[in-house]
Amino acid sequence: MTLTPTKDDKFSFGLWTIGYNGGDPFGGPTRPALDVVHGVEKLAELGAYGLTFHDDDLFAFGSSDAERQTQIDRLKGALADTGIVVPMVTTNLFSAPVFKDGGFTSNDRDVRRFAIRKVMRNVDLAAELGAKTYVMWGGREGAEYDSAKDIQAALSRYREAVNLLGDYVTDKGYDIRFAIEPKPNEPRGDILLPTLGHALAFIETLERPELVGLNPETGHEQMAGLNFTAGIAQALYHGKLFHIDLNGQRGIKYDQDLVFGHGDLHNAFSLVDLLEHGAPGGGQAYTGPRHFDYKPSRTEDETGVWDSAAANMRTYLLLKERAQAFRADPEVQEALAAAKVDELATPTLNEGESYDDLLADRSAFEDFDANAYFGGKGFGFVRLQQLATEHLLGARG
Amino acid sequence: MTLTPTKDDKFSFGLWTIGYNGGDPFGGPTRPALDVVHGVEKLAELGAYGLTFHDDDLFAFGSSDAERQTQIDRLKGALADTGIVVPMVTTNLFSAPVFKDGGFTSNDRDVRRFAIRKVMRNVDLAAELGAKTYVMWGGREGAEYDSAKDIQAALSRYREAVNLLGDYVTDKGYDIRFAIEPKPNEPRGDILLPTLGHALAFIETLERPELVGLNPETGHEQMAGLNFTAGIAQALYHGKLFHIDLNGQRGIKYDQDLVFGHGDLHNAFSLVDLLEHGAPGGGQAYTGPRHFDYKPSRTEDETGVWDSAAANMRTYLLLKERAQAFRADPEVQEALAAAKVDELATPTLNEGESYDDLLADRSAFEDFDANAYFGGKGFGFVRLQQLATEHLLGARG
Amino acid sequence: MTLTPTKDDKFSFGLWTIGYNGGDPFGGPTRPALDVVHGVEKLAELGAYGLTFHDDDLFAFGSSDAERQTQIDRLKGALADTGIVVPMVTTNLFSAPVFKDGGFTSNDRDVRRFAIRKVMRNVDLAAELGAKTYVMWGGREGAEYDSAKDIQAALSRYREAVNLLGDYVTDKGYDIRFAIEPKPNEPRGDILLPTLGHALAFIETLERPELVGLNPETGHEQMAGLNFTAGIAQALYHGKLFHIDLNGQRGIKYDQDLVFGHGDLHNAFSLVDLLEHGAPGGGQAYTGPRHFDYKPSRTEDETGVWDSAAANMRTYLLLKERAQAFRADPEVQEALAAAKVDELATPTLNEGESYDDLLADRSAFEDFDANAYFGGKGFGFVRLQQLATEHLLGARG
Amino acid sequence: MTLTPTKDDKFSFGLWTIGYNGGDPFGGPTRPALDVVHGVEKLAELGAYGLTFHDDDLFAFGSSDAERQTQIDRLKGALADTGIVVPMVTTNLFSAPVFKDGGFTSNDRDVRRFAIRKVMRNVDLAAELGAKTYVMWGGREGAEYDSAKDIQAALSRYREAVNLLGDYVTDKGYDIRFAIEPKPNEPRGDILLPTLGHALAFIETLERPELVGLNPETGHEQMAGLNFTAGIAQALYHGKLFHIDLNGQRGIKYDQDLVFGHGDLHNAFSLVDLLEHGAPGGGQAYTGPRHFDYKPSRTEDETGVWDSAAANMRTYLLLKERAQAFRADPEVQEALAAAKVDELATPTLNEGESYDDLLADRSAFEDFDANAYFGGKGFGFVRLQQLATEHLLGARG
Repeated sequence: MTLTPTKDDKFSFGLWTIGYNGGDPFGGPTRPALDVVHGVEKLAELGAYGLTFHDDDLFAFGSSDAERQTQIDRLKGALADTGIVVPMVTTNLFSAPVFKDGGFTSNDRDVRRFAIRKVMRNVDLAAELGAKTYVMWGGREGAEYDSAKDIQAALSRYREAVNLLGDYVTDKGYDIRFAIEPKPNEPRGDILLPTLGHALAFIETLERPELVGLNPETGHEQMAGLNFTAGIAQALYHGKLFHIDLNGQRGIKYDQDLVFGHGDLHNAFSLVDLLEHGAPGGGQAYTGPRHFDYKPSRTEDETGVWDSAAANMRTYLLLKERAQAFRADPEVQEALAAAKVDELATPTLNEGESYDDLLADRSAFEDFDANAYFGGKGFGFVRLQQLATEHLLGARG
Repeated sequence: MTLTPTKDDKFSFGLWTIGYNGGDPFGGPTRPALDVVHGVEKLAELGAYGLTFHDDDLFAFGSSDAERQTQIDRLKGALADTGIVVPMVTTNLFSAPVFKDGGFTSNDRDVRRFAIRKVMRNVDLAAELGAKTYVMWGGREGAEYDSAKDIQAALSRYREAVNLLGDYVTDKGYDIRFAIEPKPNEPRGDILLPTLGHALAFIETLERPELVGLNPETGHEQMAGLNFTAGIAQALYHGKLFHIDLNGQRGIKYDQDLVFGHGDLHNAFSLVDLLEHGAPGGGQAYTGPRHFDYKPSRTEDETGVWDSAAANMRTYLLLKERAQAFRADPEVQEALAAAKVDELATPTLNEGESYDDLLADRSAFEDFDANAYFGGKGFGFVRLQQLATEHLLGARG
Repeated sequence: MTLTPTKDDKFSFGLWTIGYNGGDPFGGPTRPALDVVHGVEKLAELGAYGLTFHDDDLFAFGSSDAERQTQIDRLKGALADTGIVVPMVTTNLFSAPVFKDGGFTSNDRDVRRFAIRKVMRNVDLAAELGAKTYVMWGGREGAEYDSAKDIQAALSRYREAVNLLGDYVTDKGYDIRFAIEPKPNEPRGDILLPTLGHALAFIETLERPELVGLNPETGHEQMAGLNFTAGIAQALYHGKLFHIDLNGQRGIKYDQDLVFGHGDLHNAFSLVDLLEHGAPGGGQAYTGPRHFDYKPSRTEDETGVWDSAAANMRTYLLLKERAQAFRADPEVQEALAAAKVDELATPTLNEGESYDDLLADRSAFEDFDANAYFGGKGFGFVRLQQLATEHLLGARG
Repeated sequence: MTLTPTKDDKFSFGLWTIGYNGGDPFGGPTRPALDVVHGVEKLAELGAYGLTFHDDDLFAFGSSDAERQTQIDRLKGALADTGIVVPMVTTNLFSAPVFKDGGFTSNDRDVRRFAIRKVMRNVDLAAELGAKTYVMWGGREGAEYDSAKDIQAALSRYREAVNLLGDYVTDKGYDIRFAIEPKPNEPRGDILLPTLGHALAFIETLERPELVGLNPETGHEQMAGLNFTAGIAQALYHGKLFHIDLNGQRGIKYDQDLVFGHGDLHNAFSLVDLLEHGAPGGGQAYTGPRHFDYKPSRTEDETGVWDSAAANMRTYLLLKERAQAFRADPEVQEALAAAKVDELATPTLNEGESYDDLLADRSAFEDFDANAYFGGKGFGFVRLQQLATEHLLGARG
């Protein structure tokens, strides 16, 4: 297996990732702005297949129509020249002062109307560029103070906006689905739909739930101390993994957006294993873009930007290689069986068994030897984890 | 308003809370076992209205039928003597060695069958005692290691078990609804359905979703760094706040189960305000039991147990009093209006407005003055929070 | 007691706090720059006594000497007009690109030399303005990646720089002491001297440890999940509480810099109690400035800036009032005695007792009834906490 | 290099680790008690060199002298038979009810006296068994409530106890040093000396600071979100790494005590690199026992206990192998140089340079080109981290 990425690997990057200028809460930019054409060319050179962007990444907030069109045309030219595609587009509803209390759920109704218009305009562009996924990250939808936001009303307004957008893409015949990106906090003290679980639940209240799924991000779930792989598995259980943001995070703190694999490495390994191989016994679980939403560290110059972009892809491919070997190892298969990992796929009831049948089965309760689990019937989970660790470390051939 | 609790306040306690013997990961009990009759009598004396329990709280795991019945009869006697009711019952699927990898989602199918039987038996008892809510806390449903658990299969098994129980109570004609209690971790490294969001989403995949709601716990959501009041508001948005576990937690760490109000006090205030008064302009949002799931600190003797039980109720009533004054204060009303908190309940679209109408409204976008939000149009959220703080501190008469 | 602040309360504010323009990682400014003269006038009007600043707050990085002097003169004029003093000054070694890997501990030696020069220049200004404390927050001293920074060497370089500065102020006869401000992370993945404990230990390795103390910040310790009041108590134990940064933080997440009291209210209460009254039985523990290092929320306009500045002071005074009542309450005194809180100040050994005497005391071990602590000898800590809670809530007259 | 441990690797285990019976806050034991003789024999078989223990691990709290002696004799026999040594001993001041508010710093003076006696008795045993390190983990020294504990007095009492013990071992001529083990919380809400920084600072206030150092534990520092490797580096800077507790932790949550390497793998790699190779350019940094303080997961039976014990050692050796290759790789050396990691060891001042010289050096400030750091002079930290990642993954030969 090669570690050199190709377009078949479906690696994509946000324009804001390679274009991150280094600004943070305690300092200004350390790098000049990145031109989109140069960005596309470099991504192509490195083996990526896709570019994604917010409207404001491509043309500054408040651009004239002409300025906007110039940038769109330049992007199109670069795409044509390189074969890079635009699989996903999104809207910036968080940077301009007008969005200081959010977009779809700002307490200020005028802002909400403006926000919907801004999204509709960019959805048209997304359709024009052939994007199939439209991401919604509501980073400013939230509050610092509990009495400052009526959460139930906020959810109703969010629903209203997404319902309208669902009607819009349907009526227009756009081949676009929406993907909500959850985050627990930062830049707001608490953000609406803080985890992928909250977003999954919200989606079920929409008029067109089939049009809306998730775009979970590694670091965002880990900022809540949650297991990202487990979350992705639940998203798959619901059929809602529409897109994914890969990056690295070192624990519960500010949003780090490190290179994929530079955070929790065990979890990155199990994630790649799940995406590529599905549940034990299953097939590939996710076929969409492997999208990196990371930031080249502020300490780096342009060389570091491209080194870091390449590092995301290379680490993904390395973990994919490790996961393949893990799955193929007979000792791992044996350990999985010993730990009864596969047995969980077997229904608890026998085929056709009713609860009356279960109640009548004395072996299930009255004659069941619960004591055998004291000092016996160990699951061997630590052994299995050690096998995973050694495969991850490339220590088992 | 009085701060002395009465049965009308609907305060209830778990038998395992007042009965907590002080054992923890680093030490054994510091208090002898609590007799259930004594516990019921004390709760009645203190002004509580309800007692809840796990099967194993009342009769030890593995009890004979006779031992079990003796304890049930003793409980019934105490209930009759005191007027205390049993609004909720639950099952212990986490303490005995047999559940070391969980109950409904143990990798071991025999354990899953045993777990369902154990729950069914206790559901019968719950119905007999008149409980209307049956809580399911899947504390052992989870894993420490990513490859040790097939999360999608685990969700399927959990669904299978809850579906069966839904059929069972329906067929039996029991007036019981189920409430899932989420928790992110402890005692497992990662627990299935780690937040109320994940549980809400899961419920929608059930055969009888109307029978299943939530029992969120203050500390459990806060262990993931999430805002409990905001979570409860989303539960209300979904119509799924079937029961609630109140306690105190000081940040992201082990599950502390402190007295309600001894943790995040701002959040406790906004929670009581939400439960009692609903969203701005709304009515009482929750009419069920105010259930305390806390632990009397291990440092306390029996006096401390009852002092702490009383402290939960008194703090709740104090916060209720503070919240009433907050809502009634004209300056607060003015500040809420200035912050446009109420405006969020107004739909973003005009009545009957289509997206075409919105697109045609130049005031919404083309002529909208986004720049006015720079240096102007402040929301006054800090002032509002200061008013809340001063009401909480009892500093505004 | 009045809740209107006066200069005697010694409330001070950073110029960067009231001057915060609203920029954050996901958005630009929402407010125009604040002029220093206007800022000083407003603080005076609100009852503050002091202003503090980084060099770059007053005159932009790279200012000409003339630009710099103009701003210094304007500040001096405002101070003279209002009576506001400058009790503390500090250096910005974190915003400019040159400091992208830190100042005193940048891997780049040229940067380290530049950083020391920048500090020396500003120390001269601090002395000129009569500041008695010079704060050092090494926000960029750290790393995202473990192999990118030799921590032992970094501590040596930090020591070298502080030693040089100690010599400098001593030789110059400046009446200035240094105060190190710890922070665990943000803007770096891990920051050198992440908690006040690490900084206290470091100080002991300096050539002039008596010149160097701490400037702990509420939110910074709480970002590591640590108890701020307990940390301040340890700083007092070491005689190293030279200055303090008060603000609010809601748990382990990005640095929120909320208004003091808008975060963990129990901890704010115990902190004010400790600062004002010392340990049980002690006197005022801290007489320096009550310095607020907070950010007016990005949602606010200028009215919100001054409302929030006032809120910090008012909340402090309210908590001071509550703490006085707490200390004066005979029931609290009785509960403290029952909990043996005072007894901890009594040495464990009797006066003149040797370990041989202790070994010979059979009542201490052989005849000691350890079993009496099972089911008895409760400490009554929950009752004490409930009394504290009720005083905090203003519920005990 | 072999991955089979030998005594030369100096791997040691706590008796409470391999003897952990599976009890936790939500369930009782899942495994029977481990006999010490069997434990010693198994450790020897697996390649460990040392066993450590608390008094109560070997003989139950409250044992008669005869029972105690029997167990000591059985241990001695097993040591003699296997060649296993006892490099460290410690005291249990946290499990029995008498210690519910701590040992050395209990509010109850009688308990404090009992605690010191219990430690002295076990120090004698430690000396008899040839242990060179005596660990003090003050797990119950702390509080849940801010007003329940006078932290300054607690530190004074802790100091009093350690001073007495320092006198005792000195007078007795014991070749024993003390090592304090910090922890932020659990089982108390906040523990005294919560991080290694706080403990380092405390040690400097002792009468015999040279006798007292640290026993930092991976998971304990990580429970505060701190970088363990960076903490160990600061401990080395202070010359205070007397002992170390290795294990695994997955983020900020309850104390997991996983197998070493089953937590944060990047940090485990940099830790082993630091212990084995010191700072860049340095030699071995730590020569003491590699002590594992972990818990075999509650899901395991005895086979899992020994598999997990072996896994700790094997992972350590694997990481050691990886770290050797990392250090030896010329590309890594080049990347370290490019990132100026070594340059940090060079003093900032020239030899003999005074601050006046520095002030006179125009190249350091007036003529310094700070602007060159914008868009240039990148540090290449991401490239370095990617090299570390690839070595960790065994992907660079």
